[in-house]
Amino acid sequence: MIKAGIIGSTGYAGAEIVRLLTAHPEAEIVWYGSRSYIDQNYADIYQNMFRLVDAKCMDDNMEELAAQADVIFTATPQGLCASLVNDEVLTKTKIIDLSADFRLKDISVYEKWYKIEHKAPQYIKEAVYGLCEINRESIKDARIVANPGCFTTCSILTAYPLVKEGLIDPDTLIVDALSGVSGAGRGAKVANLYCEVNESCKPYGVAVHRHTPEIEEQLGYAAGREITISFTPHLVPMNRGILATEYATLTKVNGKLPDKETIRAAYEKYYAKENFIRLLADGVYPETRWVETSNYVDIGFKIDERTGRIVMMGALDNLVKGAAGQAVQNMNLMFGLDEKTGLNLVPCFP
Amino acid sequence: MIKAGIIGSTGYAGAEIVRLLTAHPEAEIVWYGSRSYIDQNYADIYQNMFRLVDAKCMDDNMEELAAQADVIFTATPQGLCASLVNDEVLTKTKIIDLSADFRLKDISVYEKWYKIEHKAPQYIKEAVYGLCEINRESIKDARIVANPGCFTTCSILTAYPLVKEGLIDPDTLIVDALSGVSGAGRGAKVANLYCEVNESCKPYGVAVHRHTPEIEEQLGYAAGREITISFTPHLVPMNRGILATEYATLTKVNGKLPDKETIRAAYEKYYAKENFIRLLADGVYPETRWVETSNYVDIGFKIDERTGRIVMMGALDNLVKGAAGQAVQNMNLMFGLDEKTGLNLVPCFP
Amino acid sequence: MIKAGIIGSTGYAGAEIVRLLTAHPEAEIVWYGSRSYIDQNYADIYQNMFRLVDAKCMDDNMEELAAQADVIFTATPQGLCASLVNDEVLTKTKIIDLSADFRLKDISVYEKWYKIEHKAPQYIKEAVYGLCEINRESIKDARIVANPGCFTTCSILTAYPLVKEGLIDPDTLIVDALSGVSGAGRGAKVANLYCEVNESCKPYGVAVHRHTPEIEEQLGYAAGREITISFTPHLVPMNRGILATEYATLTKVNGKLPDKETIRAAYEKYYAKENFIRLLADGVYPETRWVETSNYVDIGFKIDERTGRIVMMGALDNLVKGAAGQAVQNMNLMFGLDEKTGLNLVPCFP
Amino acid sequence: MIKAGIIGSTGYAGAEIVRLLTAHPEAEIVWYGSRSYIDQNYADIYQNMFRLVDAKCMDDNMEELAAQADVIFTATPQGLCASLVNDEVLTKTKIIDLSADFRLKDISVYEKWYKIEHKAPQYIKEAVYGLCEINRESIKDARIVANPGCFTTCSILTAYPLVKEGLIDPDTLIVDALSGVSGAGRGAKVANLYCEVNESCKPYGVAVHRHTPEIEEQLGYAAGREITISFTPHLVPMNRGILATEYATLTKVNGKLPDKETIRAAYEKYYAKENFIRLLADGVYPETRWVETSNYVDIGFKIDERTGRIVMMGALDNLVKGAAGQAVQNMNLMFGLDEKTGLNLVPCFP
Repeated sequence: MIKAGIIGSTGYAGAEIVRLLTAHPEAEIVWYGSRSYIDQNYADIYQNMFRLVDAKCMDDNMEELAAQADVIFTATPQGLCASLVNDEVLTKTKIIDLSADFRLKDISVYEKWYKIEHKAPQYIKEAVYGLCEINRESIKDARIVANPGCFTTCSILTAYPLVKEGLIDPDTLIVDALSGVSGAGRGAKVANLYCEVNESCKPYGVAVHRHTPEIEEQLGYAAGREITISFTPHLVPMNRGILATEYATLTKVNGKLPDKETIRAAYEKYYAKENFIRLLADGVYPETRWVETSNYVDIGFKIDERTGRIVMMGALDNLVKGAAGQAVQNMNLMFGLDEKTGLNLVPCFP
Repeated sequence: MIKAGIIGSTGYAGAEIVRLLTAHPEAEIVWYGSRSYIDQNYADIYQNMFRLVDAKCMDDNMEELAAQADVIFTATPQGLCASLVNDEVLTKTKIIDLSADFRLKDISVYEKWYKIEHKAPQYIKEAVYGLCEINRESIKDARIVANPGCFTTCSILTAYPLVKEGLIDPDTLIVDALSGVSGAGRGAKVANLYCEVNESCKPYGVAVHRHTPEIEEQLGYAAGREITISFTPHLVPMNRGILATEYATLTKVNGKLPDKETIRAAYEKYYAKENFIRLLADGVYPETRWVETSNYVDIGFKIDERTGRIVMMGALDNLVKGAAGQAVQNMNLMFGLDEKTGLNLVPCFP
Repeated sequence: MIKAGIIGSTGYAGAEIVRLLTAHPEAEIVWYGSRSYIDQNYADIYQNMFRLVDAKCMDDNMEELAAQADVIFTATPQGLCASLVNDEVLTKTKIIDLSADFRLKDISVYEKWYKIEHKAPQYIKEAVYGLCEINRESIKDARIVANPGCFTTCSILTAYPLVKEGLIDPDTLIVDALSGVSGAGRGAKVANLYCEVNESCKPYGVAVHRHTPEIEEQLGYAAGREITISFTPHLVPMNRGILATEYATLTKVNGKLPDKETIRAAYEKYYAKENFIRLLADGVYPETRWVETSNYVDIGFKIDERTGRIVMMGALDNLVKGAAGQAVQNMNLMFGLDEKTGLNLVPCFP
Repeated sequence: MIKAGIIGSTGYAGAEIVRLLTAHPEAEIVWYGSRSYIDQNYADIYQNMFRLVDAKCMDDNMEELAAQADVIFTATPQGLCASLVNDEVLTKTKIIDLSADFRLKDISVYEKWYKIEHKAPQYIKEAVYGLCEINRESIKDARIVANPGCFTTCSILTAYPLVKEGLIDPDTLIVDALSGVSGAGRGAKVANLYCEVNESCKPYGVAVHRHTPEIEEQLGYAAGREITISFTPHLVPMNRGILATEYATLTKVNGKLPDKETIRAAYEKYYAKENFIRLLADGVYPETRWVETSNYVDIGFKIDERTGRIVMMGALDNLVKGAAGQAVQNMNLMFGLDEKTGLNLVPCFP
C-alpha cells in the first residue's frame, strides 16, 4: 500500500483526493493535513466522510510527514510547496504539487504572473509537468510532479494534437473557458457566497489569468516555438466542471482548409489509446454534465469554413481530471501501478 | 456474473442502475430496455456512458429478456411490471420492481391510491418489500422484490426504531419531505423545465401523495396496528436528494419524556450494525449534500421538550438508496452476495 | 419627500430597501449606512445600482442621521438598534427596525432566545409589531416599528385566521419552513459558500430557532392565550423565497371537521380586502416562484380528512414581504401614504 | 392608452411583455394570445399574475386583433409573423415582431439560415431593425419593427462603437456568448429539463447559430462592408442573462495599439447619452447578476497588449433588453412616448 499524505486536505481539491484515495485499492491516507482545522475530526469538516475516515486534521509538519508518507500531495496556495521541499524530504518521499510552484520552467515568468518569490528554484528543472497523456514517461521517474491547473489541463489537451501537427496557427489561439465554482476554493469570501454566484456569469482575470503562461509554455513545446494566446475564464453557477471553447485559424495546405477527417486523424494519432480522453463523434460537443465526478476529458470540434477557423471544445471535472484525479493518475504512474487504478469512475448524471 | 436486464434503462432511476452495475464486480447488463429509444445507442442518450456502454436500447420483449437475464429491474411507470410478470417469467428470472406494483399488500389500497387495476394480484402476497435493513432475510429468498419508493425509504427508516419501540405515538406522525428534481423523472413536461423549477420550492400531492399508504403500511407493521400519518412532499431545486423532517409526540413513561440517550439507544438497537445507515452525532442533522451519489441514509434527531415532540430527520440520495442503490442491494441479497458489493460508494461533495 | 436613512444598507435586506426606495415616488434615501464599506461608493458594492445611486457608504452616526432623516431603517444584527435608540433620536425621526430588538414584548423571552442583554427595554412597550395586515392602525402612529422576521411573517399570516376563529388547535401547530439563501445574510461564511449550499437541503436551528417565540407571541394574541408550537426552518438552494407548510389539528364542531368552505370563509374574513395577501383557488398551493421580487404572500390550504388535520401553506419573498417590502409598507402607513405606494411590484418570473 | 395585443403571450418572452406592460403607465393589454392555452385564464398559466391579470388566453385571430390593438407583439416561432401580416393589418395596427422574420434584409440569407420560405418578403424592406440605440429615428416611423435577438442585441452593442470607429478588424471578431435557460423557451423538451441543464454547461449551434448573420449584417453596416465573424453560444444553468465575451484584433495606428482612453472615448461617443447602456469603469467587467430584470446593457473591455487583441464584454437580461424590454422600448418610440416609459426597472439582486 502506498502511504499518502495530503497537505491542504480540507480544501475542495484536497477533499477530492481524500474521496479518490479512500476508494483506491493500492493507497491509504496516513496524514490529513489542514492548518485551518488542526485536531478536529476530518469527518466533522467533511461529513460525507463520516464512518469512512476516522482521523484528525494535522498541522504541516513536513519532517514527520516525509517520514510517514511515500507520497505527499500539496493542495495548497502557491508558494507553500516550494517553501517546504528540500533534499531531505525528497530522499524520503515523492511530491505531487497541485499548486503552480513547479509548473513553469522559467522562474521569471512564475514571479511575474504570481508576484511571489520562488523559494526553491533549484527543483524547477527536475520537476515534471504532470499532464499524464503528454509526459507519461517522464512522470514515472519523477520525484516532484507539478500537477497542472484545471483550466490548463482542459485547454492544452483540447488543442494539443492540432498544434503539434501544425494544423492551426497557435498565435491565433483564443481560449474562452467556463468554470464551476469549486475552482474558486473553500475560502470564506463574499464573492463566492451562494447568492453572489448563483444566477450569474462573469468573466474574470481577463488577459491576466495565471493559467495563461502555463498554457503557452506547454503548447509552445508542441508548436516548437514560443506562442502567445488569449485566455478568458468565466465563473458559472455550478459546482464542478470546466468547459473550454477554443478558436484558432486553420493552416491551409495548398490553399485548402484541412477537412474534418484530417482533424480527427490528428486527434486520434495522440489520443486513440488514451483511456481518459474521449474524442466525441462528429457533431457532438462536450458538456460538463457527462464527465462530472470522473477523470474523463471529452473533446469535440467544428470546422467553420466561413471563417477558416476551427472551434475546439473540451470538458472535464475540475476537481477530478482538473486536480485530484490527475494527481492520483500521476501517483499511479510514479509508483508503477496501472494508470487507471482507482480511477475507473463512471460519470454520475444527473 | 449475474446477468441483469433493465426495463426503463433511460429514465433517471434506470440510468442510475446502469451506472451502478457498470462498476459492479459481479454483475453485467445484458439488456438495456427503453421503449422511447429503441435501436439507438445507449451512450447517445446518456453520453456519460460513452465508451463505457456499447449497446443499443431494446424494446420490452419479456420472453426474450427472461431467457437472457438472471434478474430484471423494472424502472417503469406503475402497472407495467404487473402486466409483464407471469409464472414462466418467474421460473427463469427474478424481478426487482422499482414501481409501486408490489409494494402494497392490500390491493384495494393500491387501486384506490394509484387509480389503476392491478394486473397480477396473484403475486402480491409473495412479493417482498425490499427495504433491506428491515426485511433482509425475506429478500434473500424472494422471486419478486418490490423496491421501496424514495420518499418511503427515507421516511420509514427515519422513524422505524422509535415506532417499533413505542417511543412515539405513530398517529401523530407528520412527515414533511423535500425532493430533488430527478425524482420527477425524465419525461418532457413543462412543469419540470429548468426555469419552472429553478429558484422555487413547492408542495405537491398534499394529503394525497401515493407514498403515504406505503409508509403507513410499513410503519404499521412496526407499530403492530394500522396507523394514519400526514405526508407532504416538496420539490426543491437540486438534482438529487431526499430530506425527510418528521414530527411525532413522544410517549411519556411515568410522566416523563424519554431522554436523548433512550432515543439513541433505540436507533442503535436497529441500526448499529447497518452499513448504509449512519446515525449522526448528537446535535448533527442530515444534509443531502453529505450522502449524494452514495447508498447512505443519514439520520439525526432533536427532542423538543417545550412541545413534547421529537423531530426526526433523514437524508438520502433518491436515485441511490431511494432507487437504484437499494435495488442493487436487493440484488446482492437475492444472489447471495455481500450486500455491499458494488455499493461502496464514497459520497461525492461538492 | 420622505427622507430615509438606512443603517446596514449593504446587507441583502438593506440593499433591497435601497432597490425599493429608489423606485418609490414619495421617498428618497439620504443616508447609506454601512460600517463595512465606509466611504466606498455604494454602486461599487452593489453594481446593479451603477448610475442609479450616486452616494458613498456612511458610518453609523446616529445623531447626524436622526437630524437628516425622517425615518431610519435598521437592517442590522440584533442589539444594534436597541443600542442606538434614545429619546432625542425619537423626537427627530421614526425607526423601522428590521432586527428582532423590539419584536418580543417579554424581555426575558428576548434575552433567553437571543442571549444578549436588551439595551433599551424602556421602548419595548411602545414599539409596534409591524405586521401591517394585523396591526395596521397601531403602526400609523408608531415611533418605533419592529419589522417582523421573514419566517415569522409567512408563518403567522398563513395560520392567523384559523387560529383567530378557533378552527384549529394552536398547540398542535407545526411549522415546517423552507428558506432561500439570502436569508442567511451577506457575511463571508464557509457555510454559505455556493458549493456548500448548492445541490443540498438542510434543517437548522431545530427546536431552537429564534423566530419561534415571535410566532408564538403573535398567534397567542390571536388565540387569546399562550401557545407553544414546533418550528423547523430549512435552507434550500435558491436566492429568495420562504415557503411555510403548517400542520394543525382541526377543531371539530358537533363532531364534524370544518369543511373547506368554512376554512375559506375564515381566510376571506381577514384577507379579502388585503392587497398583498393572495388567497389561492381551491387545490392551488403556493410556490415561491410566483411571488419573487413582489410584496405578495400567497396562501393555500388542504383539509386532510384522514388525519383530521389541515395543511396550510404560505409563500413570500423573504427580502420583500419578509423584510424590505414590509418595511416600506410600514413606512407608508407611518407617513400617511397609501400603503401600496412603491410596492406595486409585479412578480418576476422566471 | 396604447392598446397592445400579444401573440404568444405564454412563452417566456411573451410573459415578460405582460409583466412590463402590466406596470406600464401608457399601455394596456387587450389580447393575450396563446394557441396552447386558448380559453384558459392567463393567471392559471402564470400564477405570478394572479389578481393582476384577469383575462383568458385567445387564439390567433389576426383580423380581430388588428381591429382591437394599436400594436401587436408577436412572440412566436419564426415564420408565424410573416404569415399573418398583410396590408389590411398594417393599416390598422403596428407590429413589433420578436421573431427573426424581418431582421435580415437579404431574403436568401434568411431562407438559408432558417430553412423556411419567407411568406411576406414584400415587407422586409420597410421593416426596421429595432435596435433602439442605433436605429432610433427610423423606429419612430416604422409600421413593422424587427425586434433583435437576445444574443444579437448584446453582441452588436458590445462591439458597435469599435467597429464603427475602425478600431478593430471586424473579420477577426469572435463572439463567445453565454445564455440563461429562459432563452431556450418554454417548450416541453427533455433537453431543457431541470436535471439536464442544471450543473452543466454546453456549447450549441457551433458555427451555425442563426443569430450569426444578424450580427454580421448589423456590424457590417457599421464597418461599411460585409464581414464574417465566429459566434458560439453556450447554455449555462441560470434563468436569465446573456454574457458576450468578444475578441478582436485592434487596428494599429502608426504602429501602435489604441490605448484604453481611445477605446473608452469611442464607446462614449455613441453611448454616453444612452440611458440603457452602462459603460463600466476601468477594470470592471459585466456580470449578468447586475442587470437582471432590468433593461440595461453593461459593457466593459480589456486591452491585451501581449496579443494585440481587445476583449469586449457585454451583459444583459435576455428577457428584458434581449426581448420584451427592447420591444417595449420600441413601442415607446413608435408611439412618441419617452423611450424610458415603463422601463425604469431597478435591477433586482440577488
